[in-house]
Amino acid sequence: MPSDPFFHPVSGFDLPRFAGVPTFMRLPHVPPGHARFDEVEIGLTGVPWDSGTTNRPGPRHAPRQLRDASTMIRAQHAVTGQRPFEAANCADLGDVGPNPADIPDSMDRITSFYGDLVQAGIRPLTAGGDHLTSLPVLRALAKDGPLGMVHFDSHTDLYKSYFGGTMYTHGTPFRRAVEEGLLDPARVIQIGIRGSMYDTEDVDFAAANGIRIVRIEEFFDRGPEAVMEEARAVVGDLPTYVSYDIDFVDPTFAPGTGTPEVGGPNSYQALQVCRGLHGLNIVGADMVEVSPPFDASGNTAFLGVTVMFELLCAMLAGRG
Amino acid sequence: MPSDPFFHPVSGFDLPRFAGVPTFMRLPHVPPGHARFDEVEIGLTGVPWDSGTTNRPGPRHAPRQLRDASTMIRAQHAVTGQRPFEAANCADLGDVGPNPADIPDSMDRITSFYGDLVQAGIRPLTAGGDHLTSLPVLRALAKDGPLGMVHFDSHTDLYKSYFGGTMYTHGTPFRRAVEEGLLDPARVIQIGIRGSMYDTEDVDFAAANGIRIVRIEEFFDRGPEAVMEEARAVVGDLPTYVSYDIDFVDPTFAPGTGTPEVGGPNSYQALQVCRGLHGLNIVGADMVEVSPPFDASGNTAFLGVTVMFELLCAMLAGRG
Amino acid sequence: MPSDPFFHPVSGFDLPRFAGVPTFMRLPHVPPGHARFDEVEIGLTGVPWDSGTTNRPGPRHAPRQLRDASTMIRAQHAVTGQRPFEAANCADLGDVGPNPADIPDSMDRITSFYGDLVQAGIRPLTAGGDHLTSLPVLRALAKDGPLGMVHFDSHTDLYKSYFGGTMYTHGTPFRRAVEEGLLDPARVIQIGIRGSMYDTEDVDFAAANGIRIVRIEEFFDRGPEAVMEEARAVVGDLPTYVSYDIDFVDPTFAPGTGTPEVGGPNSYQALQVCRGLHGLNIVGADMVEVSPPFDASGNTAFLGVTVMFELLCAMLAGRG
Amino acid sequence: MPSDPFFHPVSGFDLPRFAGVPTFMRLPHVPPGHARFDEVEIGLTGVPWDSGTTNRPGPRHAPRQLRDASTMIRAQHAVTGQRPFEAANCADLGDVGPNPADIPDSMDRITSFYGDLVQAGIRPLTAGGDHLTSLPVLRALAKDGPLGMVHFDSHTDLYKSYFGGTMYTHGTPFRRAVEEGLLDPARVIQIGIRGSMYDTEDVDFAAANGIRIVRIEEFFDRGPEAVMEEARAVVGDLPTYVSYDIDFVDPTFAPGTGTPEVGGPNSYQALQVCRGLHGLNIVGADMVEVSPPFDASGNTAFLGVTVMFELLCAMLAGRG
Amino acid sequence: MPSDPFFHPVSGFDLPRFAGVPTFMRLPHVPPGHARFDEVEIGLTGVPWDSGTTNRPGPRHAPRQLRDASTMIRAQHAVTGQRPFEAANCADLGDVGPNPADIPDSMDRITSFYGDLVQAGIRPLTAGGDHLTSLPVLRALAKDGPLGMVHFDSHTDLYKSYFGGTMYTHGTPFRRAVEEGLLDPARVIQIGIRGSMYDTEDVDFAAANGIRIVRIEEFFDRGPEAVMEEARAVVGDLPTYVSYDIDFVDPTFAPGTGTPEVGGPNSYQALQVCRGLHGLNIVGADMVEVSPPFDASGNTAFLGVTVMFELLCAMLAGRG
Amino acid sequence: MPSDPFFHPVSGFDLPRFAGVPTFMRLPHVPPGHARFDEVEIGLTGVPWDSGTTNRPGPRHAPRQLRDASTMIRAQHAVTGQRPFEAANCADLGDVGPNPADIPDSMDRITSFYGDLVQAGIRPLTAGGDHLTSLPVLRALAKDGPLGMVHFDSHTDLYKSYFGGTMYTHGTPFRRAVEEGLLDPARVIQIGIRGSMYDTEDVDFAAANGIRIVRIEEFFDRGPEAVMEEARAVVGDLPTYVSYDIDFVDPTFAPGTGTPEVGGPNSYQALQVCRGLHGLNIVGADMVEVSPPFDASGNTAFLGVTVMFELLCAMLAGRG
Repeated sequence: MPSDPFFHPVSGFDLPRFAGVPTFMRLPHVPPGHARFDEVEIGLTGVPWDSGTTNRPGPRHAPRQLRDASTMIRAQHAVTGQRPFEAANCADLGDVGPNPADIPDSMDRITSFYGDLVQAGIRPLTAGGDHLTSLPVLRALAKDGPLGMVHFDSHTDLYKSYFGGTMYTHGTPFRRAVEEGLLDPARVIQIGIRGSMYDTEDVDFAAANGIRIVRIEEFFDRGPEAVMEEARAVVGDLPTYVSYDIDFVDPTFAPGTGTPEVGGPNSYQALQVCRGLHGLNIVGADMVEVSPPFDASGNTAFLGVTVMFELLCAMLAGRG
Repeated sequence: MPSDPFFHPVSGFDLPRFAGVPTFMRLPHVPPGHARFDEVEIGLTGVPWDSGTTNRPGPRHAPRQLRDASTMIRAQHAVTGQRPFEAANCADLGDVGPNPADIPDSMDRITSFYGDLVQAGIRPLTAGGDHLTSLPVLRALAKDGPLGMVHFDSHTDLYKSYFGGTMYTHGTPFRRAVEEGLLDPARVIQIGIRGSMYDTEDVDFAAANGIRIVRIEEFFDRGPEAVMEEARAVVGDLPTYVSYDIDFVDPTFAPGTGTPEVGGPNSYQALQVCRGLHGLNIVGADMVEVSPPFDASGNTAFLGVTVMFELLCAMLAGRG
Repeated sequence: MPSDPFFHPVSGFDLPRFAGVPTFMRLPHVPPGHARFDEVEIGLTGVPWDSGTTNRPGPRHAPRQLRDASTMIRAQHAVTGQRPFEAANCADLGDVGPNPADIPDSMDRITSFYGDLVQAGIRPLTAGGDHLTSLPVLRALAKDGPLGMVHFDSHTDLYKSYFGGTMYTHGTPFRRAVEEGLLDPARVIQIGIRGSMYDTEDVDFAAANGIRIVRIEEFFDRGPEAVMEEARAVVGDLPTYVSYDIDFVDPTFAPGTGTPEVGGPNSYQALQVCRGLHGLNIVGADMVEVSPPFDASGNTAFLGVTVMFELLCAMLAGRG
Repeated sequence: MPSDPFFHPVSGFDLPRFAGVPTFMRLPHVPPGHARFDEVEIGLTGVPWDSGTTNRPGPRHAPRQLRDASTMIRAQHAVTGQRPFEAANCADLGDVGPNPADIPDSMDRITSFYGDLVQAGIRPLTAGGDHLTSLPVLRALAKDGPLGMVHFDSHTDLYKSYFGGTMYTHGTPFRRAVEEGLLDPARVIQIGIRGSMYDTEDVDFAAANGIRIVRIEEFFDRGPEAVMEEARAVVGDLPTYVSYDIDFVDPTFAPGTGTPEVGGPNSYQALQVCRGLHGLNIVGADMVEVSPPFDASGNTAFLGVTVMFELLCAMLAGRG
Repeated sequence: MPSDPFFHPVSGFDLPRFAGVPTFMRLPHVPPGHARFDEVEIGLTGVPWDSGTTNRPGPRHAPRQLRDASTMIRAQHAVTGQRPFEAANCADLGDVGPNPADIPDSMDRITSFYGDLVQAGIRPLTAGGDHLTSLPVLRALAKDGPLGMVHFDSHTDLYKSYFGGTMYTHGTPFRRAVEEGLLDPARVIQIGIRGSMYDTEDVDFAAANGIRIVRIEEFFDRGPEAVMEEARAVVGDLPTYVSYDIDFVDPTFAPGTGTPEVGGPNSYQALQVCRGLHGLNIVGADMVEVSPPFDASGNTAFLGVTVMFELLCAMLAGRG
Repeated sequence: MPSDPFFHPVSGFDLPRFAGVPTFMRLPHVPPGHARFDEVEIGLTGVPWDSGTTNRPGPRHAPRQLRDASTMIRAQHAVTGQRPFEAANCADLGDVGPNPADIPDSMDRITSFYGDLVQAGIRPLTAGGDHLTSLPVLRALAKDGPLGMVHFDSHTDLYKSYFGGTMYTHGTPFRRAVEEGLLDPARVIQIGIRGSMYDTEDVDFAAANGIRIVRIEEFFDRGPEAVMEEARAVVGDLPTYVSYDIDFVDPTFAPGTGTPEVGGPNSYQALQVCRGLHGLNIVGADMVEVSPPFDASGNTAFLGVTVMFELLCAMLAGRG
């Protein structure tokens, strides 16, 4: 069923891109409580929160910058021909209000907000926030059982704890998610891992639990298409989450992030991998770790929203 | 009559300042056509347009950046104790959609938009745009007769033409406004004028028409309070427009502008002069020439919205 | 015939690169009217004009920044061994003086200036300016019949109009050029097209008129050499124009531009394609859409002038 | 007794300022456990921590940037003639290791570290960190009874709580300190307060407890010398803490901070007030809220360390 | 005698300011050897050289950036009404070609170049370069006897040597100039001195030789007019040099410099002092220590050229 | 023999990366004279010196910025599994104090410092400094006979002289090193050479002396692995120096450098080539030409230290 025109974005042919209150992809702002909230099918949601960041902060500013950059997005995918905003009712649901000085309180707020989305049948496309954002989101999305996950990142985020026992940081979300039964480790694949290592604690945990890690050397050797073919095989047809840390991409292409690791994919490959997600059963996706204070050129934000557009198309690839 | 709670801004105690879709001062977005449009008393409006700029461009990006910065504004004026959002229904009316490649078309669009505001009884507080913005706004506001004007700027903007006969640029709006009978030159005062001069054409025009120019040397010699006392005398009790070019302020305090002139007021004086407007009959006001591409620190935008908050308080000074 | 020493650039071995009044590639400044104007064979010309820009402005500042960056260019092409400044009399002709507030007047000024070049037998190498610059240049160059064109860009610039009927913007020049008979569409190839699309209006026009579009996916799949071989076949031996929009290159390598599209060629490929132009009958070339306000590092300008050096060598490839 | 040469800083005449491992003011690095730790009299200490920040983050990066900038500091105060490094054994004690994802744990670490300083008879000069830093420091310093405080800031930091009950943020430290008996409110003076207000909750608390607030208008009207004379009277001869939030200074002079308020003192006044502290019984001082990610020019850091040098001289003013 | 129209600058009314090959103040480029060189009366000359810099480098890039910024300068001084380009033949003489890797060679080149100016009767207005630039210039200008000097700076530049005996750095030029008999110390006044000190070596030398130092505290206490009245008395009617180090100004107003000292004059005062030079017998002037790599906003360059325009007017104040 | 725990770096799990006095890779600071200096096996040394720079300056600031960025380095190499800090005693030896205004004096200081390292049996890993740095280092390291060299760069640095006979600049070090017998030209390979050329003087010298040059076109055609295989063959088993100019990498990935040449390797290849050094007999290595003033994002520094970590692992590849 084609989408309702109320949910169509403003065109750059009608209103210049630099004009207007910026919402995600120039979609209508339909926060919870709005009269048409229940009609939304894909909800673009901001989580301006970075309290789990152990190094350079900033992702709390990402949703607003991503909204601004997203006015560059037009209506049609050039390669697939998809017109996603006509295929489903998409809307900007606004931001979850975090508590920047209280991690547990913030996690509860996020899980509660996303619980409402699940109840309303809205699939979320999230603009974080640091990577700890994914954990409270998964708590809402995985309530009927563990999910599979395709995870693009330069880090595994599988560490046990930091600073002598702190369990909730942006380096630990997926360790927690596995422990809490939110992810099925046998259906998890992590792509792009690189950088110097503390030790082997995280990769040992992955090996012990059956998580598949594709290091960057393997990614370049085999190529994006072969890797994504394996990714589709790993997660299969069951419900799957997609988590995209912008530091998956080389920091030259995405400097605005807190823990950059040199030697990663370029911007073309950053988009290309998303097309490998088509056909999957995606229950939600996120774009995390964009940090505007370190993104002087704005290139990171623009790449981030272009990836979000790709993720949106992937979420709709089975119905277009 | 106190304002309706629908028109109250979101508090930074409830939602962190960096969160949420950015509207001017976190007010509700009430564009023309919105169900509650007719209840608005003060309409904060963006005009993202800089086609009249003869030097460095950029003010087309100002409304969006000013919205972002304006989430720093709180509810109460610290000196006067005013709580403007409780004194009148204020709202973000969105942006006028300009045509960046057609000056006459854009001027018509702006005059038409502001004509609707006038009809609805909404007083506009504008975020430009370059200084040509003021001309089409004045065309809408002055339809019942010429207005007085308090004009803060480093330039007179009274030139006849540029580049061999071009009549509409950001250096000519007030020459045109006087010629078109939109301004009563005897009730116009220009404050802060400085910088090297082409010749005396503009000041000769001012002298011939009775426009009062307060150069920066006089401003510093007599002080802001004495100058503003004279400004109130010049415009009197009749309807008055306030036009505030951010390059009135020294470029160190406001680097994000296209034609900076060194040696101007500091940020404290930039606010102080606005308090000298209290008691005037202000039918509209604007903040123009903020240019985000030249505002790496964002300080210009933050100063710009703080001035806008002062102007808002001045517009409501007779009723608080 | 070797060039006259008067036209040789200053060497960085004699005068440090950071010293001296900056002209293009440290060539002599020979504006129209100069005693030796008629001896010039290749004229490097600035067109500081961006009134056709529908999104982020700035290319009006490009000629001056490109002059500054061009002092990094030395005398010899490292791959081909060409010494272009010894092969032809090259000079900096200065800038065309545009009217930033009047599009038709500016187009007339540009066409008139380039008409003089044509009359003097000078082949132009232009530093724009936004992409609308190419239209008035083509009006001067194509007076004896339509030209072929090799066009590097991420956009087709073949749209019909913007904002409800505006015909002259940086998104429409080549639609106009085909309509005006300045280009022979069957001899036009556009390389590097990508990014989300409004709709298919532009590519439909291309298909209907026989313009060849090489999208970025095809570019990467076949490789620069195969694509350029086809380009040479498309334009053949007849007079050909080369138009190079810096947003052809990935915005990470060239952030200083108004409408970036991620996922493009890198800087090596940006140079490599120019070598594929050798042997063509090039009557003029341009480098457009460099926008200094968005080029904090200056990398865009340096890449831009390196491409200009490649274009210069291509223009002289048949005579070196 | 003059200081031991071991504690003298490296001179810029011997080693260029840009060379060497950067310590505060090029002093020796003498962390706890170092053989000469007990000889230190003034300990320059970093607290790289900003978990209490409710708006733009970044002060966690301040100690390192302040160390870098501090190599610009020379040996002698130009106005007073003091040579502080010869008057007392000064050293860089390194940083307190915070836990960026756990506020209570971090506060305990800080209080414990400063408890050791107190025990060793070392007076601390702290480089924060956001303003919550002052609370755990005061817990260590005020163990023998409440202290007086001279507080330079644009905000009172006297709020009760944020986000529905969060007690520990950078907007609440002095409310907590009064409640915990660490400060004697009758001996507290806050200077430079300005900016729009949420409401009057903070100033009501100040009024009810006898805290003296000098708003910026009063500061400019009476002048720095008169205000500082009153400040000395307020705190008297008893032990006093000095807390200096960089946002006391106008954001043009100190853009690198999280919650800027325009219209503040300039850099000359920023130093001048410190000289008004001479003669007080200062048991510790801090420089907080410097945020390097928002300090592109580095000016904020350089002003910050120049203020630290002034504070150091003030701490030694009774003995030089 | 009024100037020849050949020497008039291009007007911003005719050619937009961003257009054209940038020369100082849009004057004609008349290097030594040019046919009209001997007609020049005031020669604006670049010295792109910073080999004497002991801290942050960069002034080698200043002449080019100052040329670019100087296109903002118009024809008439707004306060005095002077039209300097009509009062004397002014021209851009180009740059002295330094040897960045050889200090003595560079000094010889500069002295030789300026010797030619002296011989041709051209008074130089120099755009440095670091402050060592002034020494080889003075060697050329003072060949008939020691000069007086008005010196604006935050440092005395009177040190004996650096790094164990290095005599030629940007901290020593005026010590050398006094020793070499180029300056009459009794006719030298240094204004704006501030910042922490190594020791008293430089001020002891000044005191012993009769050089008058006006520290910043005295400057603010007495005010610019009183200080400049004294300056005129110190140098009297005899030939006088004016040396203006941009770090005289507060680094907030002029961040682009290598050794900033906070707490200096603002931009209005920076211009005001120049007017106090009117009536002096000025044989040459310089603007030094502008460092583009540390001037992200370009404000320093624009202030620098505005001061240069003031200096130019002061050099012509006796003839207008 | 495993390293002594005294020489182990601080872990980011214990102390956040942004905390603490920054030393290279968070190693202990063990300058000459330190009690444990003689135990050091690999000495990370800064040479903050750029007096040989003929174009944009800045590398004098590199060691400090590289120290700051190096706190991102962890303990284990992800590809090889090496744990270098456990394999050898590594330490930060501090900086050689240069004389920024005297090239011969600085060269003597550097050679003398490195002579002490050689005597103590410490292999140096240097953070320059411009490329002239390598010459005085080689003078110390090659005292027993000429060395082989693997040289990554976009320039040959084999020029004879600059500016009419200046022999010591960053464009001449390896010409001098061959002439002085410090390098065996038959065992030298230069990789990545590109950019426009002055003439063929440098490559003629290389050809005449048997130096192998791998231009960038060949590098991309054959691939990093084949090129590095040849490199190993060229230098063989004899003592070899590795010199890594950051401008080897494309300036998009490493903008912070003085003489960028577009069209170079990406960051992945920048690391990959280092692994091709494993097995060589490396007596020392350097990372030069990082220029912080042109590295706004800090990406260049982070890439620089990641390469340094790779070089460190290569230096230890025969013993891990």
